[in-house]
Amino acid sequence: KMTKTIIKLTVRDVRFPTSLEQHGSDAMHTDPDYSVAYVVIETDQGMQGYGLTFTVGRGTEIVVCAVEALSALVVGKSLEEIVSDFRGFYRLLTSDGQMRWIGPEKGVIQLATAAVLNAVWDLWARSEGKDPRKLISCIDFRYITDALTEEEALVDQMLKEGYPAYTTSCAWLGYSDQLLKQLCTDALNDGWTKFKVKVGADLKDDIRRCSLIRQMIGAHNTLMIDANQRWDVGEAITWVTRLAEYKPLWIEEPTSPDDILGHAAISKCHNRVMFKQFLQASALQFVQIDSCRLGSVNENLAVLLMAHKFKVPVCPHAGGVGLCELVQHLILFDYISVSASLDNRMCEFVDHLHQHFRSPVVIQNAHYMPPKDPGYSCEMLESSVQTHQYPQGQVWKKLQ
Amino acid sequence: KMTKTIIKLTVRDVRFPTSLEQHGSDAMHTDPDYSVAYVVIETDQGMQGYGLTFTVGRGTEIVVCAVEALSALVVGKSLEEIVSDFRGFYRLLTSDGQMRWIGPEKGVIQLATAAVLNAVWDLWARSEGKDPRKLISCIDFRYITDALTEEEALVDQMLKEGYPAYTTSCAWLGYSDQLLKQLCTDALNDGWTKFKVKVGADLKDDIRRCSLIRQMIGAHNTLMIDANQRWDVGEAITWVTRLAEYKPLWIEEPTSPDDILGHAAISKCHNRVMFKQFLQASALQFVQIDSCRLGSVNENLAVLLMAHKFKVPVCPHAGGVGLCELVQHLILFDYISVSASLDNRMCEFVDHLHQHFRSPVVIQNAHYMPPKDPGYSCEMLESSVQTHQYPQGQVWKKLQ
Repeated sequence: KMTKTIIKLTVRDVRFPTSLEQHGSDAMHTDPDYSVAYVVIETDQGMQGYGLTFTVGRGTEIVVCAVEALSALVVGKSLEEIVSDFRGFYRLLTSDGQMRWIGPEKGVIQLATAAVLNAVWDLWARSEGKDPRKLISCIDFRYITDALTEEEALVDQMLKEGYPAYTTSCAWLGYSDQLLKQLCTDALNDGWTKFKVKVGADLKDDIRRCSLIRQMIGAHNTLMIDANQRWDVGEAITWVTRLAEYKPLWIEEPTSPDDILGHAAISKCHNRVMFKQFLQASALQFVQIDSCRLGSVNENLAVLLMAHKFKVPVCPHAGGVGLCELVQHLILFDYISVSASLDNRMCEFVDHLHQHFRSPVVIQNAHYMPPKDPGYSCEMLESSVQTHQYPQGQVWKKLQ
Repeated sequence: KMTKTIIKLTVRDVRFPTSLEQHGSDAMHTDPDYSVAYVVIETDQGMQGYGLTFTVGRGTEIVVCAVEALSALVVGKSLEEIVSDFRGFYRLLTSDGQMRWIGPEKGVIQLATAAVLNAVWDLWARSEGKDPRKLISCIDFRYITDALTEEEALVDQMLKEGYPAYTTSCAWLGYSDQLLKQLCTDALNDGWTKFKVKVGADLKDDIRRCSLIRQMIGAHNTLMIDANQRWDVGEAITWVTRLAEYKPLWIEEPTSPDDILGHAAISKCHNRVMFKQFLQASALQFVQIDSCRLGSVNENLAVLLMAHKFKVPVCPHAGGVGLCELVQHLILFDYISVSASLDNRMCEFVDHLHQHFRSPVVIQNAHYMPPKDPGYSCEMLESSVQTHQYPQGQVWKKLQ
């Protein structure tokens, strides 16, 4: 095998004006413009790897700036050098003696790390050039051998049925009741059985919306609610008590994501150390990994293994831009090589912006079907990138 | 009183090549170039406010980028508008519906928030134009009235004796034993009685250095050790057990700053929610506030009050660039208006780079003497800023 040296890294600020139609709106993010810091790395042999991290508009330029700062640690390295000691490379990125001060492993610098590492994983997967079945089964990871024997059967099941998904597309906070009803009807017709509603801005509104959606979907389907960090601890308890009659399976992000002790529910964490404590403190009942907030596949694997050890199901966060495309790889790995169970497990799905990707997710009967193309599925269409680049792209020029 | 509108915010990347002499070196930051994102705000009446946040070199440009992003939330506001609802303004900066995604309240965006708010506090203090005695006593804060009666006597005591300090200047990890001895002798002659040593890179080295410094300072003086997040939890316990014979008062940052449950010691936290849990979990015995990692005076006040409630002494983190200048205000406020106690309390001091400030800290007999000039003491000399601006300043041009 020839050595492939990474000779170039580019990063672009790509934004979609989703706030114009209130897609993605919740109690804390009332006007998100779904965005990515979009990374492309290139080898001396002309092979490319694509990676991204998800943001919601303003501030994306800061993440772009951070990716540029990390780029010196990547460019010049060979892919072989990286993957032969991928843990060491992960530590190089997260533990730079000067840059770790502005994290460590949190916020902007962690998002940038995820974008860069996602591109490296994509490059690695493409360079192996294997079909997804072999790609999945080629991962030989320590500590999981107890689950590996059934692997082949599980792969077959996934290829046939896919991985169960739930939808967040029907009930963004800024949607009217009429739009909510329409989207709910459509989703039921498409075979969806699990629905997430955004709550937390106004209790009366939440009661009306939860009641409405519970009526629409019936008692047998599943409802989840998400407050996006809106409440104090006491407030969360009061509020959720009022909404309990609509029988939500979970309440997501009731309060500050840093508050382990205050949590009686689940949260999206920014690194494995936070997840470790949420698990140790029995402060979550569902683990929601994120392909772009954690440090790429590397750190997600650590969290999947911890969740397995603590016997807590993994239900990934997705949506945004490209999060579904990325996270499908992780949840398939979790099922096939770690948990081997679908009990209480499902993966979030949001139906926006997939048309901008070269290999968009495939949903059949409310299930994620395994990706077929090599790579980490986050290559975007060059035309989409150019049109939406901020601030010079056509879409943004028109809006100015 | 006339309205003062903030019409301009500038931010500059200022770096000092401290790594050349190993100042500031520790187990995780082996080659820090002490740096600041330096903010100047200006009102329509020509009044200026100065603020900064501390960094250690690479990555400062990312914080500068984040300050620029926050600038739109500050420029155009009047000082009166801000301080009449300072809590609301704090929330505006930390809860922007798009930018909070890349935090919230952590990492780069939190450091940028601190720099901006430090400048606002400085502007406010200057605009009040009061002498320090009145400035301290003018703060009328809820929940602390039980300690306020003794205030005047405490102010007098501070003006006469100052606030007890400890030094970290003698024992950076990269210093030779000879330099360590020399600096220790000098410090003892200058009246220092409390010393902090950096540890965590190599156990044999640490034993030798701790033994040496304990010999130098004698059994009656105080020694603290700081591992700068180097260890896993188990490793920390083994390592500290070996160093216990040198009787350190505390062990600082033994492991990940995010690991509340893993901590048996103290830590520098990035926001009030983290501090709350460290206190709730009895995971720290000393609270080390930081004027630039927390959200300025606003968030530091919240932490001082919580520490008081949980009866844990506050011993601020300082050093870096300008941290001593800033934090002296906070610790004086803590003593005079909150804790009214010096038991187990002291403020870190590091003797580098003070010459670049217009009103540097005054240390007498190992005590911080109260600042005399109005403001938050972080105005730098314009000549220092220009010489050290990165990458175009003279100092950096020479090093390239």
